[in-house]
Amino acid sequence: MPAPLSDSPRQVRIALGERSYEIRIGAGLLADAASWEGLPAAAAALVVTNTTVAPLYLGALRAALAARYRSVFEVVLPDGEEHKDWATLNLIFDALLSHGCDRRTVLFALGGGVVGDMTGFAAASYMRGVPFVQVPTTLLAQVDSSVGGKTAINHPLGKNMIGAFYQPARVLCDLDTLKTLPPRELSAGLAEVIKYGPIADLDFLDWIEANVDALVAREPRALAHAVKRSCEIKAEVVGQDERESGLRAILNFGHTFGHAIEAGLGYGEWLHGEAVGCGMVMALRLSHRLGLVDAAFVQRVTALIARAGLPTVGPALGAERYLALMRVDKKAEAGEVRFVVIERPGQAAVRGAPDDLVRQVLAESTR
Amino acid sequence: MPAPLSDSPRQVRIALGERSYEIRIGAGLLADAASWEGLPAAAAALVVTNTTVAPLYLGALRAALAARYRSVFEVVLPDGEEHKDWATLNLIFDALLSHGCDRRTVLFALGGGVVGDMTGFAAASYMRGVPFVQVPTTLLAQVDSSVGGKTAINHPLGKNMIGAFYQPARVLCDLDTLKTLPPRELSAGLAEVIKYGPIADLDFLDWIEANVDALVAREPRALAHAVKRSCEIKAEVVGQDERESGLRAILNFGHTFGHAIEAGLGYGEWLHGEAVGCGMVMALRLSHRLGLVDAAFVQRVTALIARAGLPTVGPALGAERYLALMRVDKKAEAGEVRFVVIERPGQAAVRGAPDDLVRQVLAESTR
Repeated sequence: MPAPLSDSPRQVRIALGERSYEIRIGAGLLADAASWEGLPAAAAALVVTNTTVAPLYLGALRAALAARYRSVFEVVLPDGEEHKDWATLNLIFDALLSHGCDRRTVLFALGGGVVGDMTGFAAASYMRGVPFVQVPTTLLAQVDSSVGGKTAINHPLGKNMIGAFYQPARVLCDLDTLKTLPPRELSAGLAEVIKYGPIADLDFLDWIEANVDALVAREPRALAHAVKRSCEIKAEVVGQDERESGLRAILNFGHTFGHAIEAGLGYGEWLHGEAVGCGMVMALRLSHRLGLVDAAFVQRVTALIARAGLPTVGPALGAERYLALMRVDKKAEAGEVRFVVIERPGQAAVRGAPDDLVRQVLAESTR
Repeated sequence: MPAPLSDSPRQVRIALGERSYEIRIGAGLLADAASWEGLPAAAAALVVTNTTVAPLYLGALRAALAARYRSVFEVVLPDGEEHKDWATLNLIFDALLSHGCDRRTVLFALGGGVVGDMTGFAAASYMRGVPFVQVPTTLLAQVDSSVGGKTAINHPLGKNMIGAFYQPARVLCDLDTLKTLPPRELSAGLAEVIKYGPIADLDFLDWIEANVDALVAREPRALAHAVKRSCEIKAEVVGQDERESGLRAILNFGHTFGHAIEAGLGYGEWLHGEAVGCGMVMALRLSHRLGLVDAAFVQRVTALIARAGLPTVGPALGAERYLALMRVDKKAEAGEVRFVVIERPGQAAVRGAPDDLVRQVLAESTR
C-alpha cells in the first residue's frame, strides 16, 4: 500500500450543517493568501501563537493575512501545557479588548494543541463567540486536536475541564511546518495517527505499519497521507456525534490512562501524545483481559507504538493513584471510570471495567 | 386593563428546537418538589447562590431537590456585580471538581442576574457543557436575565465580554422571592419590565402605566402579569434570534448608555437596572433627535421610569468618556457605536448615530 503520489493540496470536509468547514492539507499553504479566501469578512484578525512558533511562522502568516484584513494583531503566549490555564487565556482577552476588537474579529490559532485549544475557547467565549481558524503546526494538532471543535483549558484538579464545543471556520494544515518539529513531538503526533487504526480502520493500521519508518523520517507524501486519512476518520466520527454524546468518545482511545499519566506526573512532564501512546498499550491490555482482543493484536499495536518512538511502559504512580486520577475523567459517570476499549480490531466501545482488572493492567504496564 | 385574576402558575415556552424549555411562574414554586419534575436525570445537583440569598432560600431549595438528586451540593458566592469575574466563577469549578461532579450533574442558579450569568457560563464550560436551571430571585432576573441563554462574566476592560449563549433546561420564577427584595432592586427590575413596552408592545406599556403603583407595592397579581408578559415578549424575540445576529439586539434598549454608566462609575455603584432606566431616557432622547419619536413619547416613558423609582439623570462622566466606554460595547462594529433606538412607539431598531447628536443627548441627560 504505497502513499498516494500526488503533491497537490488535499481537502477534507467536516459535515456539521451550518457549522461545516474544510480542512486543507498541503505544503506551503500558510504563506499563500489564497488559503484564506472565503473566510468570514472582518476588519481585524488576531493571531494567537507561542514563543516557540512565533519566530518560525508568525511573520509569514501575518504577511498573508495582511492582504485580507485591515488590522492584523498578534498575541504570543508562553509555550507549554503548564500554561494552558485561565491566566494565559486571559492574555488573549486582554489583547482583543485592548485593540478594541469587535464581534467581527477572526482569531487564528498558530501552533500546537495548546494554542489551538486556548484560542478556540477564547473565540467561543469572546463576546459570546467570534470566528476562528486553526493553523496547526504540530502533527498532533493536524491529525487530532485542531479538528472537531473541542476547546478547553486545564483546571488544577483536571485536564480540559473548562471549555466548549466550538467549531473553527477552517483548518489549515501546512505540512512544511512539520519540518521544524522536535523528534519527540513528531512521535507524540504519531500516537494519535496510530490511534485511528485500532478504533476504526485496519487498512490504515496496515498502511501505518508499512510506512512508520517513512513517517518518522518525515517523508512528505507519507505525512500527507497520514494527516489526510486521520482527518477523514475524525471527520466521520465528529460528523455523527459533534458533542460526544456517544460514538465520539472512541477518539479518546488511550486517553483515560494517558490523562492519569499526565496529571500524575504533572502536566508537561510527558507530552500528551506520549501519554496517549502508553495509554493505548494499557487500554489494549485491558481489552485483552476483558476477553475482547487476543494477545497477538495487543503485541502488534504495542510494537508499532514503540517503533514510532513512543513509551510503552507507564510511570509507577501506584494503582490507587491511577484509579483516583481516572475517576475525574470527563467520561466517568457517578464515580465509575469509563474506558475506551477495542471490542474487536478496528472497532472501539466505551465501557466500565472492574478495578481489579485495571490494577492488573497497571501492574504489568508500569515501572 | 386589570391584571389577570387567576393565582395558578403560568407557563411560557421558549421555542428553540431541541434547546426549548419552559419558564414556570408562580408563588411557592421553589420549595415544591413538583417544580423539578422532568429535568435531566442526574446523580448530583449543585446549587450556586450568594451570601444574601443563601440564608433566605437555599434551605428550601435544597430540601426540594433532595427528593430528586442523591447528592445536593452548594457553593455560596460573594454578592455583587463586582464579583462577576473569573476568580468567583472559578469557585464554581472548584466546587464541581472537589465533589467529583461528572457530566451528568445539574447546576441550579439561585439568585439574581449575577448568579445566573455566572452559573450559566460555568454550566456552559464545565466539561464543555452540563445542564443548568435558572431559579431567579430578583425581578430583573425573572423578567430578563434568566431567560434566553446569555451567560457571561465581566473583564476589567468590559462588561459581559466573556461568556456563551447557553440555554437553561428550565427557568423557575417563584414570585414569593420578590417579597424580600430591597426596594432599589425591585425598581431596577421594573426598568427591564418597562423596556418591553417601547420596543415591542404598546398595550403592555399602557398596562404598566396603569399598574406601576401596584407593581412598586408588590401586588402579587400585578407582579405575576408583569413577569409573564415580559417573558412572553422575550421568548418571542429570542425564539427568532437566539444568538443575537439581528433582532435580539433590541432587547438591549437603554443598555449601551447604561453600560457606560455602570463602567464609568465602577460596576456595583449603580444597579444594572438603574443604569438601564437612565439609559432608556438617553436612548429615547437620541431617538427623538434622530427624528423618530416625538417629545411627548419621550416624556411619557421618562415619567413612567421615574414613577418606578428609577434615576432619569445620568452621572456627569463627560461626553468623551461616555463615547469611549460605548465603543467597547458588543454591538459596536469597527469602532462605530450602535444604539437601540425607538423607530416608532412599539418598535425598535439598531443603528449608529453621529457623535455630536450623542453629545447633545448626554449634555441634557447628565449632571
